[in-house]
Amino acid sequence: MERRLPTPAEVMSYLHERRNWGRWGKDDQKGAMNLVTPAKRVAAARLVRSGRSVSLSRPFPKEPGINNVFPAHHFMRTHERLPAGGFAADYYGIYYHGIASTHLDALCHTWDDQGMWNGRDPKKEITFEGAAFGSVEHWSDEGIVTRGVMLDVPRFRGEPCVTFEKPVHGWELEDICKARGITLEPGDAIVVNCGREAWQAANPDRPYGRPFGGGVNERPGLHVSCLPFLRDHDVSLLVWDMLDHSPPGYDIPWAVHGCLFAYGVALLDNALLEPVARACIEEQRDEFMLVISPLPVKGGTGSPANPLAIF
Amino acid sequence: MERRLPTPAEVMSYLHERRNWGRWGKDDQKGAMNLVTPAKRVAAARLVRSGRSVSLSRPFPKEPGINNVFPAHHFMRTHERLPAGGFAADYYGIYYHGIASTHLDALCHTWDDQGMWNGRDPKKEITFEGAAFGSVEHWSDEGIVTRGVMLDVPRFRGEPCVTFEKPVHGWELEDICKARGITLEPGDAIVVNCGREAWQAANPDRPYGRPFGGGVNERPGLHVSCLPFLRDHDVSLLVWDMLDHSPPGYDIPWAVHGCLFAYGVALLDNALLEPVARACIEEQRDEFMLVISPLPVKGGTGSPANPLAIF
Amino acid sequence: MERRLPTPAEVMSYLHERRNWGRWGKDDQKGAMNLVTPAKRVAAARLVRSGRSVSLSRPFPKEPGINNVFPAHHFMRTHERLPAGGFAADYYGIYYHGIASTHLDALCHTWDDQGMWNGRDPKKEITFEGAAFGSVEHWSDEGIVTRGVMLDVPRFRGEPCVTFEKPVHGWELEDICKARGITLEPGDAIVVNCGREAWQAANPDRPYGRPFGGGVNERPGLHVSCLPFLRDHDVSLLVWDMLDHSPPGYDIPWAVHGCLFAYGVALLDNALLEPVARACIEEQRDEFMLVISPLPVKGGTGSPANPLAIF
Amino acid sequence: MERRLPTPAEVMSYLHERRNWGRWGKDDQKGAMNLVTPAKRVAAARLVRSGRSVSLSRPFPKEPGINNVFPAHHFMRTHERLPAGGFAADYYGIYYHGIASTHLDALCHTWDDQGMWNGRDPKKEITFEGAAFGSVEHWSDEGIVTRGVMLDVPRFRGEPCVTFEKPVHGWELEDICKARGITLEPGDAIVVNCGREAWQAANPDRPYGRPFGGGVNERPGLHVSCLPFLRDHDVSLLVWDMLDHSPPGYDIPWAVHGCLFAYGVALLDNALLEPVARACIEEQRDEFMLVISPLPVKGGTGSPANPLAIF
Repeated sequence: MERRLPTPAEVMSYLHERRNWGRWGKDDQKGAMNLVTPAKRVAAARLVRSGRSVSLSRPFPKEPGINNVFPAHHFMRTHERLPAGGFAADYYGIYYHGIASTHLDALCHTWDDQGMWNGRDPKKEITFEGAAFGSVEHWSDEGIVTRGVMLDVPRFRGEPCVTFEKPVHGWELEDICKARGITLEPGDAIVVNCGREAWQAANPDRPYGRPFGGGVNERPGLHVSCLPFLRDHDVSLLVWDMLDHSPPGYDIPWAVHGCLFAYGVALLDNALLEPVARACIEEQRDEFMLVISPLPVKGGTGSPANPLAIF
Repeated sequence: MERRLPTPAEVMSYLHERRNWGRWGKDDQKGAMNLVTPAKRVAAARLVRSGRSVSLSRPFPKEPGINNVFPAHHFMRTHERLPAGGFAADYYGIYYHGIASTHLDALCHTWDDQGMWNGRDPKKEITFEGAAFGSVEHWSDEGIVTRGVMLDVPRFRGEPCVTFEKPVHGWELEDICKARGITLEPGDAIVVNCGREAWQAANPDRPYGRPFGGGVNERPGLHVSCLPFLRDHDVSLLVWDMLDHSPPGYDIPWAVHGCLFAYGVALLDNALLEPVARACIEEQRDEFMLVISPLPVKGGTGSPANPLAIF
Repeated sequence: MERRLPTPAEVMSYLHERRNWGRWGKDDQKGAMNLVTPAKRVAAARLVRSGRSVSLSRPFPKEPGINNVFPAHHFMRTHERLPAGGFAADYYGIYYHGIASTHLDALCHTWDDQGMWNGRDPKKEITFEGAAFGSVEHWSDEGIVTRGVMLDVPRFRGEPCVTFEKPVHGWELEDICKARGITLEPGDAIVVNCGREAWQAANPDRPYGRPFGGGVNERPGLHVSCLPFLRDHDVSLLVWDMLDHSPPGYDIPWAVHGCLFAYGVALLDNALLEPVARACIEEQRDEFMLVISPLPVKGGTGSPANPLAIF
Repeated sequence: MERRLPTPAEVMSYLHERRNWGRWGKDDQKGAMNLVTPAKRVAAARLVRSGRSVSLSRPFPKEPGINNVFPAHHFMRTHERLPAGGFAADYYGIYYHGIASTHLDALCHTWDDQGMWNGRDPKKEITFEGAAFGSVEHWSDEGIVTRGVMLDVPRFRGEPCVTFEKPVHGWELEDICKARGITLEPGDAIVVNCGREAWQAANPDRPYGRPFGGGVNERPGLHVSCLPFLRDHDVSLLVWDMLDHSPPGYDIPWAVHGCLFAYGVALLDNALLEPVARACIEEQRDEFMLVISPLPVKGGTGSPANPLAIF
């Protein structure tokens, strides 16, 4: 891979010529998750050696803040039980897309002018009752159980975090694999650490993004040049703390997020990657069993999730 | 274990004399989940052989019905993205305790007149901001990764489902273990199938329960005599489709649900067990790797969950 | 008006030939509320003589029940205030259409195959962000302040309530006016009491309706023959406790609820009319100042409301 | 009234010595709304002369922003109706206290270390199910129908808005009454315009307040010296666009908001007063019929509201 910015034509080819539409049948709603076979799950389980388990989730985002314009709801109730007892119950409510919540994106979540995953028309498929195609419940029956591979950009760079000036490119991900002796295999989930916590600590008053309006959405992250990396390696899932470098610099609605509709590759947004990056260093490993278990919401566009890396 | 109903004094001893308060320290908030060690996780992962993965979750309960008096919320939005694209997002809201949603109960969920887990006072610990003790996030950091053991009552009985007239007793669970050659080990999760789907199909107009008032909560399920089974075998988690046989027949606010505050044993309520029971038959196994990944809600009394059984 | 059931052709003419589309301009979004002029408000205020004020609202429907399949949310919080104080706050959430909540229907709420109010296409106007035409905020700027006229059917019939077997017909409303010496004037709100509380007390296990599926929606109420009554008298608003007699007996999606899209007449559903009916008797009056103040929700299809009758 | 800042002891006397506890009985839950008698309502209705009706409500606050950290929910659904029609419905959800929503505060909303209205203990009265004393439904049965009197501070000052440097004092409200020839009577609602819209336009990046944490809550508004004005004139309700000048400058949790628990005076927070202030000028009047109709939420701490001024 050349170490240069792709041309606009190349970016378009990432999204349109190389797309996976029809690869698993024209009505397929699982996308690249088809690459996670039973054998793949067995191999993932074989990676468990120390038994250490690490969550990749941020706390459920209840508190308002510059990165949380739609705080999640958490409300409590108590109920009495005769003769002398009781219980506590609570309501959870969350508009989980955006930049505050660790969540999975279903294939129906994004589209461009050529359509959603497998060429479906969002005007028809996105209904008031939910998405009629590419919704999250198609990943809930089996969950997501595969090999997770850490690609730790700050560690590779020897810097605390990715910055806006220096986005992550596809060739850098290749460099990391090479430097770490990693060979990716079809169906792997890649976990790209960008050091979002360090970035935020260094920029306390700057929102990481503005996904629901409110001004220019300028943020550091993965450049659209990462798209062919996902496609070339038949990645099933991208787990990331920072998201697309934005604005993308090309006349497209979606950069790396285009992997949803173009490749059928799942995204796990806003992961908390400091703990798992530290665990990789301590365990001296770059791979682990990854388990993500989306809620079976019929028609859902994704799911809040607590991904687990098991070493 | 004698095959007779316990006396009231015996039931009280299950809840009070045999309780685990202080066993893992007086401030412990993990309870019997302490028995799920790294070595336990390694052993659980070793159980993965065919790679078949099965969800134990009912669908997210959006539709009103006799078993769903507080339907979950699922609302859709779409947002445009320039120059020519868009995305779909949605709100999930759920008051998840009760009988409709597959969910995990945290240790703070129930209490009797002697208190919550580890003797805490619910008047102090249950606040408007959440539970200050025994809340779910203490299980979210590592998730729940352990051996799951199927105890299939209808299969054992040769009947379609457990009925109100014939509750599941502790000695029957022992019988099942013996008949199936199962040896339970500390930290195991037991998955007790009672055939709730078959029961509901045979009783279409009868709610399985009335957890939030609305009349007598009469339902089939596990008898309070199952409590010592959980305690004797150092079970970490009970996964069930039917819940406590109710009314319990003793002057107590909680029967099997008392394992939360008395033993620190977690509950995974309203599991969908038909698919995993079938998988056990087809795979000719009674054990599997079980993964449950609760959302890290600070102060939460539990979490909606999609448990995965990996064979 | 003849005392016979209208023919299907007559019903169609109620909905289509007599409709008010274009009457106040093709882009009008206020409908018959245009008939409530400043002079009408002055006249309504002149009706205030004793100063008695009566709410026409049921309680905010928090409790589940046969008539409340989507209970409203009410959740509490407390917050401390230094040096020594605090405050209580709460969340209200409601899916207010249906039969549980006293609420106003905006003009965009219903449609048939010829469209919404003023001929608009619901496919275009009803968006994920709200209704782009005929939404409730067009009535919020001035509120609804007009003369309310009680038409008390049980009182007229000398029976406790309207029954399924004996729906309210348009000619009966005329009879009531005549018997009571009432002359309706353009812009009046009519308040049609059907004795819903008495009906429910006599039918405690029968839901008043099933507006969101769950079986046949059979219920007593106003017959479609009431439509020309609304049109002939240039009523601005129909306040009712029972709704459309259902099923309507004609091949139409909406009976009396068709007044929204056909005539631009507002509906105030599920009013609590026992107190105001009693007040009318005690005050020996059939008219009062009526004030309804819908929340200004941009794009809203209506509003929960607490209508006030001021005598 | 002297034109000087009150001493700390004087402020304490406003809150404690002059309070209205027991004035309408020790179990009274209506507070100063008792002063709104039927005769008062008749007199209010007599004020209607031109029939102009003006809303005092901001739009339902759906959009996130610096003044809206907990945006209200508005979600849409459509449902089909056979044979060929449909309807649109929507969910409204709002955590309405704070500075974004026009809402009424019930008497239970605030307290200091001496307690809530009538001396009740918030630890006992504020429950997970709602407030057991001083909740909003006690004002819902009759609604609020009284004389509204405009006290327009920017107009009086000849300045666009109240500023932090120059709070509104009680003696200034007296001055306005005198200058305008206004005589307040028991049960009147005062409508104090501070020009919040002009203030925000001049300070576009500054939140009007931070009611839920997030830093110092510095904002312009009414000084605690306004408390005796409310008490002396037996005001029933204060309608305001700006709230308490904050921080108050005294060691108290609540300044003007203390009128709730001390005097039983209702507050209508975050009114939109530009339109009604303009109407007063155009109609050459300072008084109007004011109608506020809170939702009857049992145990509610207030209500979103759309107040109407009828001239």
